[in-house]
Amino acid sequence: MKEKQTHSITLESTCKITDEICLPDTKLPRVVIVGGGFAGLALVEKLKHKEVQVVLLDKNNFHQFQPLLYQVATSALEPDSIVFPFRKQINGYKNVFFRLAEVEEIQPDSNTILTNKGSVSYDYLVLATGTTTNFFGMDSVAENSLGMKDIRDSLNIRHMMLQNLEQAAITCDDKERDALTNFVIVGGGPAGVEMAGALAEFCKYILPKDYPEYPSSIMNIYLIEAIDELLGTMSDKASSKTLKYLEDLNVKVLLNEAVSNYDGNEVTTKSGKTILAKNLIWTAGVKGQFPKGIDEKHVVKGNRIKTGSFLMVEGYENFFAIGDIAAIITKDTPKGHPQVAQTAIQQGKWLGDSLLKIIKNEAPKPFEYKDKGSLATVGKRKAVADLGKMKFAGYFAWLLWSIVHLMSISGFRNRLMVGFNWAVSYFTYEKSNRLIIRNFNPKSSIKNRGK
Amino acid sequence: MKEKQTHSITLESTCKITDEICLPDTKLPRVVIVGGGFAGLALVEKLKHKEVQVVLLDKNNFHQFQPLLYQVATSALEPDSIVFPFRKQINGYKNVFFRLAEVEEIQPDSNTILTNKGSVSYDYLVLATGTTTNFFGMDSVAENSLGMKDIRDSLNIRHMMLQNLEQAAITCDDKERDALTNFVIVGGGPAGVEMAGALAEFCKYILPKDYPEYPSSIMNIYLIEAIDELLGTMSDKASSKTLKYLEDLNVKVLLNEAVSNYDGNEVTTKSGKTILAKNLIWTAGVKGQFPKGIDEKHVVKGNRIKTGSFLMVEGYENFFAIGDIAAIITKDTPKGHPQVAQTAIQQGKWLGDSLLKIIKNEAPKPFEYKDKGSLATVGKRKAVADLGKMKFAGYFAWLLWSIVHLMSISGFRNRLMVGFNWAVSYFTYEKSNRLIIRNFNPKSSIKNRGK
Repeated sequence: MKEKQTHSITLESTCKITDEICLPDTKLPRVVIVGGGFAGLALVEKLKHKEVQVVLLDKNNFHQFQPLLYQVATSALEPDSIVFPFRKQINGYKNVFFRLAEVEEIQPDSNTILTNKGSVSYDYLVLATGTTTNFFGMDSVAENSLGMKDIRDSLNIRHMMLQNLEQAAITCDDKERDALTNFVIVGGGPAGVEMAGALAEFCKYILPKDYPEYPSSIMNIYLIEAIDELLGTMSDKASSKTLKYLEDLNVKVLLNEAVSNYDGNEVTTKSGKTILAKNLIWTAGVKGQFPKGIDEKHVVKGNRIKTGSFLMVEGYENFFAIGDIAAIITKDTPKGHPQVAQTAIQQGKWLGDSLLKIIKNEAPKPFEYKDKGSLATVGKRKAVADLGKMKFAGYFAWLLWSIVHLMSISGFRNRLMVGFNWAVSYFTYEKSNRLIIRNFNPKSSIKNRGK
Repeated sequence: MKEKQTHSITLESTCKITDEICLPDTKLPRVVIVGGGFAGLALVEKLKHKEVQVVLLDKNNFHQFQPLLYQVATSALEPDSIVFPFRKQINGYKNVFFRLAEVEEIQPDSNTILTNKGSVSYDYLVLATGTTTNFFGMDSVAENSLGMKDIRDSLNIRHMMLQNLEQAAITCDDKERDALTNFVIVGGGPAGVEMAGALAEFCKYILPKDYPEYPSSIMNIYLIEAIDELLGTMSDKASSKTLKYLEDLNVKVLLNEAVSNYDGNEVTTKSGKTILAKNLIWTAGVKGQFPKGIDEKHVVKGNRIKTGSFLMVEGYENFFAIGDIAAIITKDTPKGHPQVAQTAIQQGKWLGDSLLKIIKNEAPKPFEYKDKGSLATVGKRKAVADLGKMKFAGYFAWLLWSIVHLMSISGFRNRLMVGFNWAVSYFTYEKSNRLIIRNFNPKSSIKNRGK
């Protein structure tokens, strides 16, 4: 008996051939979700305890709370506070199965997907694979800079930063020391603005404590944005206020400027400026990432997948795309919806309800996006908010930002951890432990990016 | 002025040539400490605010609390709870300077050491480089198993374990699944016993929650010890009680048994037993690790450095070794002192006081070791204690173990974190987040071991 037990998963599993991923054999329609980001998880939540078998595939065993990646990069939070294991999330969802696998190819005509761990067949397929950093073909930048799209990127930035600050204490070469302690952030969107603000606060409050040997003037932070304002998608008030906040924190903001080359030591801009810096963080663009097997005709600008307002990929009735990867191209939304968390969550929830209708041969209503407004923070007590007609900045915007983000994090423990760390750092300006656990190596970090 | 400021560290620094590590030029005698473990840090604490310049060199920027590495390996604690940045530790110690550098060679005759970041000259040198895993020349084991000597080892074990448990959900091959879910721990000392107990509790309390698809009987834990009892250095009562605790937790303990070969999939023992297991954790031996430049005649069994009872290396008056690396060979201690935290701490403190005397040309008293007793824990409410004549086991031993360890951890924040996690896990049996942040790859992990 015990022998049997040890192998009991296979007894009710569907898998006959060994290159198939083992899954229990329920007679329910199988919905395979690729990617457990905001969109994928929102969909899982809608489908739990329903008459479907849900299979969640992800190359990581955890969900990442992307809006706070920059706080991990600057050692304000530890990784375990903003990532959450899928198996904890789906704990008790009897119809939901997680498998750690990277999808390599989809074969929508045979309702099969191929992963690095074996194949899976589906009745309904949902792609929620999100985006990755877009260096727009600038190899020199791609090779020498770091993006900030997942937790590994954040840890790479942290390790790069701390290792370079340590090296600055060791070198006798003034120019090298300047390069080691100068930071350039490219991209004036929320990610770039929040990163610049966090670095500026690190320089203001942590550097003097950890490196009493240094004058705080040793660390220079540059923010480069191609257009003539920061947070281009937000209101003019938000943009100008953000600029003021950053300049008050001694961030050197370069507008109407772009990077043309970076050799790992010196940044060259389109206008011919050069900045000595061994730290370049790239937040200037994203592009959709998805497995092989999707016809070119479905792919639109930004490497996104074109769908109708039912989030179906053209020509299929059981193949959907949601979140950053999906572009609902209609008269009202010629460019698709903004690639932000709230779009992803709304699409995940919508598809959850709609899929259950579709399975029952009922007609769903088309997806409609509700803009709940935008928030961005520059630092302590410094944030901007556009909520419909209401546009405000300062302490209350920052408080709202903090509450909204704290409430959005998965898991009680994580909320507690983040809340605790924020409270400590609010009152003491002290950050959590600053550890270099891996030696940072740009080449390998780029090789492994997203792996 | 600002220009000058930016470079101000060099203005008072000694370094003239660029291959020298930059350090402020104080006229005080320079004590260089290599390694910030228990011994090195205890020494730093004694020398802070004294009339010496202390230079702490370590290949990591953090101190590791080794006794709890196994809890990081089993996801009970996150790394940041048991490692502590040196720069936080030395915050406000005006005469102490940390430099992140790996010492490659010492040249005691010219009072110079060479690191991967440049050279440093010293008036007094203290080696506190500790030990590393000893596979006793068994290449097959070294290549395919994991030691547990630093935080990277712990994270490698965690990643190996979680990835293998995920793969077990994917495979259709019964034998492969057994190998993926079987764990073999080699070495019945404190590290092995505590690791086995923690894994057994993981299997008992976490596995059913995270992997409801699995019967708990799927995970088998073996503990292999070469002699006829566990915790050989402790009392017979402690040994037998520990054996009972582990067997109650369904750990299969093999005494008088040793591993002869391991191919990454199957363990072969000296007596000819074979165990199918993709998880092998090696805690069966350590050996001293130190840079080049030490004469063979100073090296004794276990690759330790022979010293007299003043912890001086023979033939030098400004070259000391402390902690696991040091072996005080005398009539009373023909094998040196036990390689445990309390020896290291006592030697670090002793050398702190003695060095200040030596600098003032006063004669120090020889080092005397005070055995404060031993503690080991198998799991919740299960521990053993030998305190002089007092030998006890159970709840109070466990409580004592918890308090002693909590109090020994550096940093208020870390104590709070560990205390919080222990409290949560005590009442809920829930562990902290189980994340696979890096893909685990044995080869690379072994390549990077200790790096």
